[in-house]
Formats: sequence, C-alpha cells, structure tokens
Amino acid sequence: MDRMNRGITAKGLATRQRIVVAAALLAREKGAAETTLDDVRAATSTSKSQLFHYFPDGRADLLVAVAEHEADQVIEAQQPYLGDLATWESWQGWSRAVLAHYAELGERCPLSSLTSELGKSSPEARAVVGALFATWEAALLRGTMAMLPDRVAAVRQARSILAAVQGGVAMLQGTGRTEYLEAALAAAIAPLKTGAAA
Amino acid sequence: MDRMNRGITAKGLATRQRIVVAAALLAREKGAAETTLDDVRAATSTSKSQLFHYFPDGRADLLVAVAEHEADQVIEAQQPYLGDLATWESWQGWSRAVLAHYAELGERCPLSSLTSELGKSSPEARAVVGALFATWEAALLRGTMAMLPDRVAAVRQARSILAAVQGGVAMLQGTGRTEYLEAALAAAIAPLKTGAAA
Repeated sequence: MDRMNRGITAKGLATRQRIVVAAALLAREKGAAETTLDDVRAATSTSKSQLFHYFPDGRADLLVAVAEHEADQVIEAQQPYLGDLATWESWQGWSRAVLAHYAELGERCPLSSLTSELGKSSPEARAVVGALFATWEAALLRGTMAMLPDRVAAVRQARSILAAVQGGVAMLQGTGRTEYLEAALAAAIAPLKTGAAA
Repeated sequence: MDRMNRGITAKGLATRQRIVVAAALLAREKGAAETTLDDVRAATSTSKSQLFHYFPDGRADLLVAVAEHEADQVIEAQQPYLGDLATWESWQGWSRAVLAHYAELGERCPLSSLTSELGKSSPEARAVVGALFATWEAALLRGTMAMLPDRVAAVRQARSILAAVQGGVAMLQGTGRTEYLEAALAAAIAPLKTGAAA
C-alpha cells in the first residue's frame, strides 16, 4: 500500500468519496457518536484494509472527512445565491434558502454532532469549523461590499449577518421554532436594501 | 429525613444555595463532566446524606440546580439594563454589558457545558434553557415595545436581538473573537434608535 499516492487516482478518489458520503448518511441517521467503522464497512461493502487505506488513523480520520463534507453541504445549501449576492433579490433568495435548509434540518445539526464527537475544542474540529466560517464570511462580505459603499460598514454587516444565522439556528435547535431565524435573517439583511437604494 | 419539607427553612435554603454555588464554581473550573459528588462534598464540607437530602436524585439533580443557577447568572449579567430597556441609552448600556460579560467568559460557556452533561435534548436541559429564553425574550420584548410603535415589529425585533446575541456568542466560542458579537449587537439594536427618534 503506497500511502504517498493514496487517493491520487480518480478511482481512488471516487471510492473515498463514496465512503465519506455513506458515513455522513449514517452519522445523520444514528448520530456521529453511534457511527462505528463496522457500520461504515457494512454500508459500503469495503474491507477493513480499504478503510484504513483511505483513513490511516481510522474512525477519527473518517469523522474529520465527514465533518468537512457536512461543512461543504452547509455552503452548498446556500447556492446559487451565496456565490452572487450582488442584488437585493439575490439576498432575499439567499435568506429563503437558508431558512428552508435549517427548517428542514429542524433541531438536528449534522456538523455539530460531528464536531462534538471529535471534541469541540479539538484541533480537527476547530479547523473544519474555522474553514467553514472563513468561506462563509468571505462570500457574505463580497455581497455586502457590492451593496454598501463603505468598506468598514460592509465588514461589520457581513459579520452581523453570519452571527444572525448562527443565532437563529441555535434558537431553532433550542426551541424547535423557526421564527427566530426568520426574524434574525430579515433584520440582518434589511440595511442592504436601503444601502442599495442609497 | 422529611423530604416534603426539605429546603423550607431559611437555614436549609441557605445550605442548598451554598452547595449549588460551590458546585457551579467547580463546574466552571473543571467542566461539568468532570464534577463529581465527591468533589462537591469536599468543597462544601457536607456529608453524603446532606447532599442527598437536598438533591434526592444525586448528581443529575444537583447539575440541574447548577444549570438553573447559571441561567440566572446569564440574566443577572445584563442587569440593571435588561429590566429597563425603555431608552436608547439603556439599550446601549445593555449592549455593552452583554459584550463585556461574554468577552470575559471567552470560549467558555458554563451553561452549555452543563446542558451537554445533562444531555442537550434531555427534558431537564430543555426546561432550563427554555425558561431562560422565555425570561430573556420577555424582557427584550418589553424594551422593544417601549421603543417601537408597532407591536408586530417589536416582537420580531426582540427575537432578532435574542438571536443576534446567541449567534455572536456562538461565533465567539467558535473563533475566540468578539467582533461578531459586537457587530451583531450593534446591528440588532440599531433600528431601535430610529424607532425612538421617529
């Protein structure tokens, strides 16, 4: 087994991705804490040596890859709007997409279940969450800069919008109700409407 | 031991409160998961039978009481402003108090460590968090109603402010940075300034 070349072939990448997607489904169904390598092997018809070929450190390695995959899903659920927040209509579409995504997830949060299992303050969990926040904030910032003439105001607006989403989702998970996320999103993007009009 | 009368005397209440406060300190220092009844006994010089007198179901019972205590602290840290949000100055003072409180806590969140230990979705944890959110939202709503003429707008504003705090705190815990909470608070209360002026 050549570890240096693992995953370089297209076939290898596809197999790895198939394992990650299957493990993500299992983690969503059973919770990350209950998802074992045996479950993943059974669900993907892979051997132990194949699993360790793609994830040399075993379960923790795989859970990090699953967390990265779930972080990608968070961004994906906001497209195509998140990539092009240059108009008020796009911000409204984005806001609806975010609300629909989290309303569907309800009190579940796949990524949070994974980072809990990895240890919230573990370097691995922090790296995945940090990268997600950075990507997310950068996309929001491109949008607020397109809408607001003042750069400092645009930076602050992007941060407050990102915080509004996190808070609305936290309230949804704590109460089972979507009204907080809805109100937070509406309030957080409202200044962009006037900003664009100004 | 008369369970029906436990805690009714002033002395009994004081002893119970002393145990709760000591356990809260231990949970803040060591984390809720690492706080045992033996630690609490040692810190408070109480006997096993005394502990079970006040907390018949043992550790879980005590942790619920500690979580209620920490929820009270969350509200307490926002006073005196939270109780009187009828002026723009009071909202600004409240905003500064919230920021200072969470900046001091940093990435720690005592209540979240306790609810994790009780099980985030346990009826006990949900009851404590639900009661906290209800108290908090009611106080914010009294304030937004004092500032905004429209009741529906005031309800939405209170929800978005509560979500902004939760999200800013979540970002602080995820990134170690206070800028998100600061931006979220400023953006969330900004409409109240114009509302009051209008």
